[in-house]
Amino acid sequence: MRLKKGSPKASKLVQSVRIDVGADTPVYRQIADQLLATGDGRAGGGRLPPTRRLAEALGVNRNTVVAAYQHLVEAGAVRSHTGRGTFFVQSERPAATPAPGVGGGAWPGAFARAVESPGIGNLLSVYRTATSREGISFAASYPAAELLPVEAFGVAVDAVLRERGADVLAYGPTAGYAPLRDWIATDLRKSGAAAEADGVMVTNGSQQAIEIVFRALVDPGDAVVLEDPSYTGALSVLSSLGARRIGVPMDEEGIRPDLLARALEQHRPRLLYVQPTFHNPTTRTMGERRRKEVLELAVRHRCTVVEDDWGRDLRLEGVDLPTLYAMDGGRHVLHIGTFSKKLLPGLRIGWVAARREVFERLLLLKQIEDCGTSLLLQAALERYLVDGGVESHLARAREAYRTRRDRMLAALRRHAPRQARYSRPWGGLFLWVSLPDGVDTDALWIDARERGVLFSRGTLFHVDGGGKNTLRLTYSVASPDQIDSGIATLGELMRKRISARGRSAPDAVSEGIPIL
Amino acid sequence: MRLKKGSPKASKLVQSVRIDVGADTPVYRQIADQLLATGDGRAGGGRLPPTRRLAEALGVNRNTVVAAYQHLVEAGAVRSHTGRGTFFVQSERPAATPAPGVGGGAWPGAFARAVESPGIGNLLSVYRTATSREGISFAASYPAAELLPVEAFGVAVDAVLRERGADVLAYGPTAGYAPLRDWIATDLRKSGAAAEADGVMVTNGSQQAIEIVFRALVDPGDAVVLEDPSYTGALSVLSSLGARRIGVPMDEEGIRPDLLARALEQHRPRLLYVQPTFHNPTTRTMGERRRKEVLELAVRHRCTVVEDDWGRDLRLEGVDLPTLYAMDGGRHVLHIGTFSKKLLPGLRIGWVAARREVFERLLLLKQIEDCGTSLLLQAALERYLVDGGVESHLARAREAYRTRRDRMLAALRRHAPRQARYSRPWGGLFLWVSLPDGVDTDALWIDARERGVLFSRGTLFHVDGGGKNTLRLTYSVASPDQIDSGIATLGELMRKRISARGRSAPDAVSEGIPIL
Repeated sequence: MRLKKGSPKASKLVQSVRIDVGADTPVYRQIADQLLATGDGRAGGGRLPPTRRLAEALGVNRNTVVAAYQHLVEAGAVRSHTGRGTFFVQSERPAATPAPGVGGGAWPGAFARAVESPGIGNLLSVYRTATSREGISFAASYPAAELLPVEAFGVAVDAVLRERGADVLAYGPTAGYAPLRDWIATDLRKSGAAAEADGVMVTNGSQQAIEIVFRALVDPGDAVVLEDPSYTGALSVLSSLGARRIGVPMDEEGIRPDLLARALEQHRPRLLYVQPTFHNPTTRTMGERRRKEVLELAVRHRCTVVEDDWGRDLRLEGVDLPTLYAMDGGRHVLHIGTFSKKLLPGLRIGWVAARREVFERLLLLKQIEDCGTSLLLQAALERYLVDGGVESHLARAREAYRTRRDRMLAALRRHAPRQARYSRPWGGLFLWVSLPDGVDTDALWIDARERGVLFSRGTLFHVDGGGKNTLRLTYSVASPDQIDSGIATLGELMRKRISARGRSAPDAVSEGIPIL
Repeated sequence: MRLKKGSPKASKLVQSVRIDVGADTPVYRQIADQLLATGDGRAGGGRLPPTRRLAEALGVNRNTVVAAYQHLVEAGAVRSHTGRGTFFVQSERPAATPAPGVGGGAWPGAFARAVESPGIGNLLSVYRTATSREGISFAASYPAAELLPVEAFGVAVDAVLRERGADVLAYGPTAGYAPLRDWIATDLRKSGAAAEADGVMVTNGSQQAIEIVFRALVDPGDAVVLEDPSYTGALSVLSSLGARRIGVPMDEEGIRPDLLARALEQHRPRLLYVQPTFHNPTTRTMGERRRKEVLELAVRHRCTVVEDDWGRDLRLEGVDLPTLYAMDGGRHVLHIGTFSKKLLPGLRIGWVAARREVFERLLLLKQIEDCGTSLLLQAALERYLVDGGVESHLARAREAYRTRRDRMLAALRRHAPRQARYSRPWGGLFLWVSLPDGVDTDALWIDARERGVLFSRGTLFHVDGGGKNTLRLTYSVASPDQIDSGIATLGELMRKRISARGRSAPDAVSEGIPIL
C-alpha cells in the first residue's frame, strides 16, 4: 500500500473495508457501503484514496473501485474535484439517528418505485459532469459562456421589468406567456408546420417537455421505442415511469427502418421518441426519405411520435430538412424544442407543440408540476427574440462552433489512435467517438478526469448498458487551445487503453448496441 | 326561448343539442359534447348562450348546464370572460382529421392513467379562476400587485446580471444556487430547525416541491393522509399518482388527533401531508400541543410527515409557533416553503428541506423534471433577500393584509346572511366561509361570476366532493373599495341561494366533510 503521507484518514478508511466475495452484494457495492459507513457525516469532508491505490490495497480490479466511487458520486455522498481527488461531501447535519420508537429501517423501503428504478440517476450523472467548472470540458452540452447574449438579454430583462413590472412578477397562464407562445408558433410555421400559439406549451427547458409528454402518454410497463443510443434525459424519464425502453439500432442516417418496423410490430409501443436532426449523442441526421419512412411506419402502427428538435438552429452546414411535425401536419407528432442549446441554458425555457387532445393533458401535468414557468423569464426572452438581434447572435455562435468543430476534428486527426472512429457533425455542439471493442470508456473517463479532461461516457446514452467503447466530445465550450491540449491528452489515454486490452482483442469497432 | 337578438350562432347551437335521458352518458356531458361538436374549431370563437337560457331551452336544471360549461372550461374548449359570457376558444389549427390509415380512435385511450384520474384537473380550475384579471377577485391566493417589491427586485436582477453575467445564464446545480440554499437554511435555523444548505433543494414554487416529494414517496394505491379540506395542488398531485387520499376532518385547531390515529391505523399511509400554520383553505392553525400530538402519532405509525409551511411569514397576529420540522429535528418531517405567497409569485421559487436519504431521491426527480430552476432568478432572489430590504417589505405587506382582512370581516358582518360562518384568520391571504347545508357554492360561483365577482369554490379543496356549501375568499388582492362592493354582491347572492333552498332545509352549517 502506497497511501500518500498525510492521509491518515484515507489510510484508516482502507483498513476498515472488508470484502466478502461470497456475499450477494456486489463487491463494488460492498466497498461503497463501507466507505460510506466510515466517512459519512464527518464534518471535515475527508478525501478518498485514489482508485488505483485502493484497488491495490484491496486486491481488486481498479474498475471495481471506480464503480464504487461512481456509486457514491451518484448517491451524492462524495464529490470529485478534477485533478484533486474525491472527497466526502461535507455535512454538519445531525447524524441520522432514528426517533424514539422508530427503527433505523423507517426510511428504507419507503420510496416510490419511480426513484428506485435503475437508470433514473443517469441524467444526474451526465449533468454533474457537464456542469463541472473544472478542467477542460468536452462533457458540457451547451453554448460557450462567451457566446451567451448576456448584454442584449440584460437589456430585455430591464425593459420588461420597467414596462410591465408587477405583471411579469405575478402568476401567469399555465401554458405560458402568450406573446412567447405566438413567437414560437410563428417560428414553427416558418419551417412549414401548421402550428398555432394555442397548441404550444412553454416548459422549463425541453427536459420538462420530454418528461411531461412521456408522463401523459406512458403507463408502467408500456413500451416506448427510441434510437439506441439516445438522449440520457429521455432514458431516465422512461426509467422513472417504469416504461419498457426498446432501443433500435441506427445506421448513418439514424434509426433503422427495418428494425423499427420489427420493434413496432413486436412491442406495440405507445410512443416513438426520435431526434431526427443532429441526434444526441451520435450527431446523425435523418434524410428526407428516412424521415418519411419513419413517419409512415409510426402512423401505420398507430404510434405517436415525439420529435425532439433541440438542435435545429445549430446547423453548421447543409440545408434545413422538414421536421416530422411539419410533414405530418401535427397529427401524430409532438414537437419539442428549447432555447437552452442555442441561446441561454440558464433560462430553462423550452416548449412542446401538440394537438388539442394531447395539449390539454400536458397542461394538467404542467399545472401540477409547477403552475407554469416564470413569466419574467418568458417575457424577457420574448423581448430579446423580437428586439435583441437573435439572428445575428446565432450567426456568430454558429461561426464559432464551426471553427471549434473543425479544430477538434483536426486535433483528433493528429492525436487520436488510428482505431478511433468519430463523426463529422453538420450541426449541434459535439461529436461522437467509437473505440475498438473491449476499450472501456468508463475507465477512460476516470483516467481523463485525473488528467483534468472531462467527456461524456457512452454507456449513459445506451438503453441496456451498451456502448462501453463509445464517448461524446463537446466542442462548443472549450477554447481552441483547450481543444488541442485536451484532445492530445485524450488521444494518449485512448492509445494506452487500446494497447492495454488483451492481445487477443480485435480492433473491430462496434457501437455496442444490442441487436433487437 | 328568449335568446338575445343578434346571437344567431347561439340559437343554432341550442337547436343542435339533443338530450337522451336514458343514455349512459350523464346529461351534462351530453350537452358539453354536443356543444363542442358544433362549436369547436370555428375561427370566430362563438359565444355560448347564458346558462339560464340554455337550461330553459333544453328543459333541464340550470346546474346541469353549469356543469356542462365547467367541463368545457376544464377541457380548455371554452373560456369564461367575467361579465361578458362564455366563448369557444379561438382555433385556426386544422380540424382533427385522422391521418390516412388511422382511425379517429388513434388518440383516445392512449393517455396514461396519470392524466385521466378524476381530480387531477382541479388545480387547473382553481388556478384559472385565481389568475383571471377580470372583475373583483376574491379567488386569487397571492400578494396584491401593488405590494410586489418590483423596483427592489429589478435592482437585484440588474446587479447579478452585471456582476455575474454568463454565470447566471448557464446551467446551474440541480439542487439550486448555493447562496440561496444557504439563505434558506439559515432562515430555517432561525425558527429552531437543524437545517443545512445541503439538505435544501430549490424548486419551481412549492407546487413542484409537493409534487416531487409525493412522487418520490408514493406508489399507485398507497394511502396518503391529509386534512379535509386541503390544498388543491396537493390533492391533484395525489390524483395523478393514483394514491388513495384519506381525508381527516378538522376541528378549530386543525386535523383531529382521534380521527388521525384511526386513519393511521386503518390505512397505514406512506405520508401525512399537513399545513399546521394558516391551513389552506380553512386558515386554522395548530397550537403547539396539537403539533406535538400530530407528530407523535405520525412517528408512532412510522409515517413520514410533509409539512407545507407556505404562510409562515404572513402572520398578522400572535406569535410564531415551532414548525413540525424543527420539533422533530428533521428526522421524519419534510419541510416545504415558498417565496410566491410572501414575495413574488412570478419567480416560481420554493424549496423542500429533507434529510439525506430522501434528499437524494428528490434530486433525481428534480433532475429529470427540469434539470434545475433558473439560476438567474435564484441569484436575483438571493441578492434581493440579502440587500433588498425584505423585512421592511414584509412588514408593509402584512400591514396592508391586516387592513384588508379587517375590511373584509367588517363587510361580511354588514352584508353576509346571518347563517354564514366565516373564519377570522391570524395570518395568510384569505378566509373561509361555510353556508347552510344545501346551499351549492358551485352555483353561487356562477351567479357571482355573472356579477363580476370571483371566489374559490369549496368543493375543489375537498377529498371526496364534499364542502358543497363552502367557499374561500381572498382579501389580499382586491382594493378596500372592491372588498366592500364585492362582499355586498356576494351577501345578496348568498341570501338568495339560502332562501331558494326547499322550505324543509334546516339552517345547519356543516363542513361537508365525510366521516372517516
